[in-house]
Amino acid sequence: MRPNLLTALAGKRPEKLPVWFMRQAGRSLPEYRKVRAGIPMLESCLRPELTAEITMQPVRRHDVDAAIFYSDIMVPLKLAGIAVEIEPGVGPVLDHPVRTKADAAKLPAAQLNDPAPIAEAVRLIREELPRETAFLGFAGAPFTLAAYMVEGRPSKDHLRARALMHSDPQTWDRLLSWCAEVSRAFLQVQIDAGVDAVQLFDSWAGSLARRDYQEKVAPYSGQTIAGLEVPVIHFGTQTEHLLDLMAALEVDALGIDHRTDLRTAASIVPDLPLQGNIDPARLFAGPEALYRHVREVVAAGQAAPAHIVNLGHGVPPHADPGVLTELVAYIHALNPKQEK
Amino acid sequence: MRPNLLTALAGKRPEKLPVWFMRQAGRSLPEYRKVRAGIPMLESCLRPELTAEITMQPVRRHDVDAAIFYSDIMVPLKLAGIAVEIEPGVGPVLDHPVRTKADAAKLPAAQLNDPAPIAEAVRLIREELPRETAFLGFAGAPFTLAAYMVEGRPSKDHLRARALMHSDPQTWDRLLSWCAEVSRAFLQVQIDAGVDAVQLFDSWAGSLARRDYQEKVAPYSGQTIAGLEVPVIHFGTQTEHLLDLMAALEVDALGIDHRTDLRTAASIVPDLPLQGNIDPARLFAGPEALYRHVREVVAAGQAAPAHIVNLGHGVPPHADPGVLTELVAYIHALNPKQEK
Repeated sequence: MRPNLLTALAGKRPEKLPVWFMRQAGRSLPEYRKVRAGIPMLESCLRPELTAEITMQPVRRHDVDAAIFYSDIMVPLKLAGIAVEIEPGVGPVLDHPVRTKADAAKLPAAQLNDPAPIAEAVRLIREELPRETAFLGFAGAPFTLAAYMVEGRPSKDHLRARALMHSDPQTWDRLLSWCAEVSRAFLQVQIDAGVDAVQLFDSWAGSLARRDYQEKVAPYSGQTIAGLEVPVIHFGTQTEHLLDLMAALEVDALGIDHRTDLRTAASIVPDLPLQGNIDPARLFAGPEALYRHVREVVAAGQAAPAHIVNLGHGVPPHADPGVLTELVAYIHALNPKQEK
Repeated sequence: MRPNLLTALAGKRPEKLPVWFMRQAGRSLPEYRKVRAGIPMLESCLRPELTAEITMQPVRRHDVDAAIFYSDIMVPLKLAGIAVEIEPGVGPVLDHPVRTKADAAKLPAAQLNDPAPIAEAVRLIREELPRETAFLGFAGAPFTLAAYMVEGRPSKDHLRARALMHSDPQTWDRLLSWCAEVSRAFLQVQIDAGVDAVQLFDSWAGSLARRDYQEKVAPYSGQTIAGLEVPVIHFGTQTEHLLDLMAALEVDALGIDHRTDLRTAASIVPDLPLQGNIDPARLFAGPEALYRHVREVVAAGQAAPAHIVNLGHGVPPHADPGVLTELVAYIHALNPKQEK
């Protein structure tokens, strides 16, 4: 049985609305907190059995239509030899930020030195996953990776990264090209080992003016995904002003955050399946306000050629997993054609 | 001599382009760090001589066309009797978040108990300010204040606040009405004491879907500014999808962040003077990349009835004040009509 999510990614409307949640594997689940206890983030992404277990947890619990490979956007950097750790409560921290031509010259080769744990984890998941559940790989887009590499840690405005793109275009090109190659290699390992489709996260693209995105970022996102053998979902937050440029890359669907009505998105990119965009805040607003909103999202999704239901952003760590499980059942029971 | 900035706010083009910077008074200036040493943030906003000194520092140093009253969006809350402090490195932290009907019932009266230090500071600044320099008051918009009050501290997504607006509309209405009254009172004190115009900051409005902004937020922003006797500049970041709704309030100019081209903004709100929108990242990109960008911004500003030059966001704390001083001189020397 072909997974409904893949039918939607092909631009057709499956019988039931497919639904999954960004960050469905993670801190909102007690079984995740249990198996992760005492294990650093990046290490948990490089132990195949553990990675597979964490990936499967939300599939077992919520009956979602996709597993998303449990990993971190920093994993390919670590596998390429970059000194990076995820500091709890902070985020990715790099020993050596890349801010100058000399820094960029010291980058290691753009390759994954030991991708075996990734491939092994993907195979373990593929074996366990029900045939009707899609399996999504993922990677961070070059700009988002580069923003971390330039700043050396999470930042609100990515000022240093955004300055570098204009002050030293050659170093910027070298860094973004490096990120594109590493990110592509990370996706390719997952594809070779058996994922059905991939999602490219450009979490920080929304911080960019349109022209900067178009000239200094989009070409590298394009390199990351050009010619991949599986469908690609592309997602960023606060990107309403960039949607047409993101769609012009070789992508098969666009993820939309909660700020943009799916009808608006469909008017900008009429030919693409859309994914999203339940406001995560509604998970905390009680069932009535949540389900009213979900019906509106599903009705708006009719404006696109196909619709994959998701949140407009990742599952908040303090979300109640029971609310998510019930939400999946609610969506599966909806007849989208009645929600106009 | 009428300040050029007020001419622009009236929708006319002054001879020279007016320019000022959001957060021009503050950590980027060594003279600020000196006078603030050891003094908590909110206290520095309630000592009239100190407030006046800090407000004047960037006027003296940079030759900007406006002084912006040095204060904090939390000041009116504190003056109304809310227990709030600004924790260094964190931001506003409230002892008692407002999350339930019972919490809202315990709010103090929506009035400023001792506005004298504000009025006194405004008068001191007015006395010292050159006649050709405009004097701007400011306040936070109700949603931004409420987001802090519900969360109790800064948050990335304001999930609790955005949940409350849907889960308990009555409490939301009570809280936002309270914020609107307090914010308006804060503006009125500044106006009565002599500011020429005010800027209403809705820093977090960009986190909202259009419909939520329209139904649950904009009416209260409207209450805050309706009928004020001076021009109003309204500003938020990431608000391209909301610009027409923000313009529909009783405002005289819109501040635009660096993500939105001023031509795009002018196509959405053709009748309003625009303020902005130099990318703060360019302050770190060297003079060539900075001034090229500034010329583009000024050329784009020709699409609006009038243009007040500013950054697209506040001055970053680690910005070089020398770069800002030279930037003001550069802008004053530009002939905007040649920058098409």
